[in-house]
Amino acid sequence: MSVDFNTVATEFCHFYYQQFDSDRTQLGNLYRDQSMLTFETSQLQGAKDIVEKLVSLPFQKVAHRISTLDAQPASPSGDILVMVTGELLIDEEQNAQRYSQVFHLIPDGNSYYVFNDIFRLNYS
Amino acid sequence: MSVDFNTVATEFCHFYYQQFDSDRTQLGNLYRDQSMLTFETSQLQGAKDIVEKLVSLPFQKVAHRISTLDAQPASPSGDILVMVTGELLIDEEQNAQRYSQVFHLIPDGNSYYVFNDIFRLNYS
Repeated sequence: MSVDFNTVATEFCHFYYQQFDSDRTQLGNLYRDQSMLTFETSQLQGAKDIVEKLVSLPFQKVAHRISTLDAQPASPSGDILVMVTGELLIDEEQNAQRYSQVFHLIPDGNSYYVFNDIFRLNYS
Repeated sequence: MSVDFNTVATEFCHFYYQQFDSDRTQLGNLYRDQSMLTFETSQLQGAKDIVEKLVSLPFQKVAHRISTLDAQPASPSGDILVMVTGELLIDEEQNAQRYSQVFHLIPDGNSYYVFNDIFRLNYS
């Protein structure tokens, strides 16, 4: 395993959730036309449709808190797989909802974009 | 998206958990030398080390129950990414533990093997 994928994965997720929680209209830069998002039972493809979906989610204030973050190299060409479990605080709700999310990151020049993104709330 | 990845992912996960729950010493066929497992905070590479880890887990009876299973195509060459959330019942415990797991499956002839495997219990 290379030395750097954990750092990339951690920095990516912190940036992603910070951007999501402050202004999710700007998340499009992290996706490409071939990117896929499964958000609960919805399936979207392409940066434009993915961001439309994320922007349309029915909350104003949102905060992600990471509980666990685990990364592995996913290909010889530098792909990285990250699984996050965490908590989501929405609007004025007192109780956080637990979620699980996986990102498949593909290198692109000096940066990475999201090829696969699967998000699920953990109902109990 | 191809028509078949959901079927492959579903059949793979059912087979995997059935094998895990009945005789996890036989899971080695599903991994290769380059395969990686993150199981909680442990990191293993290679079918042999991965199976040793799974066999060494401190329980006799185990049952996985899938709550959600979401798959996406992960490469032009037929890789599949699957995220599972579910419940784990161990030995004679009454309360199931929730878990999240991701598999990155790579095609190999008529079958698939696990390249990436990340498993986390969801502590509340």
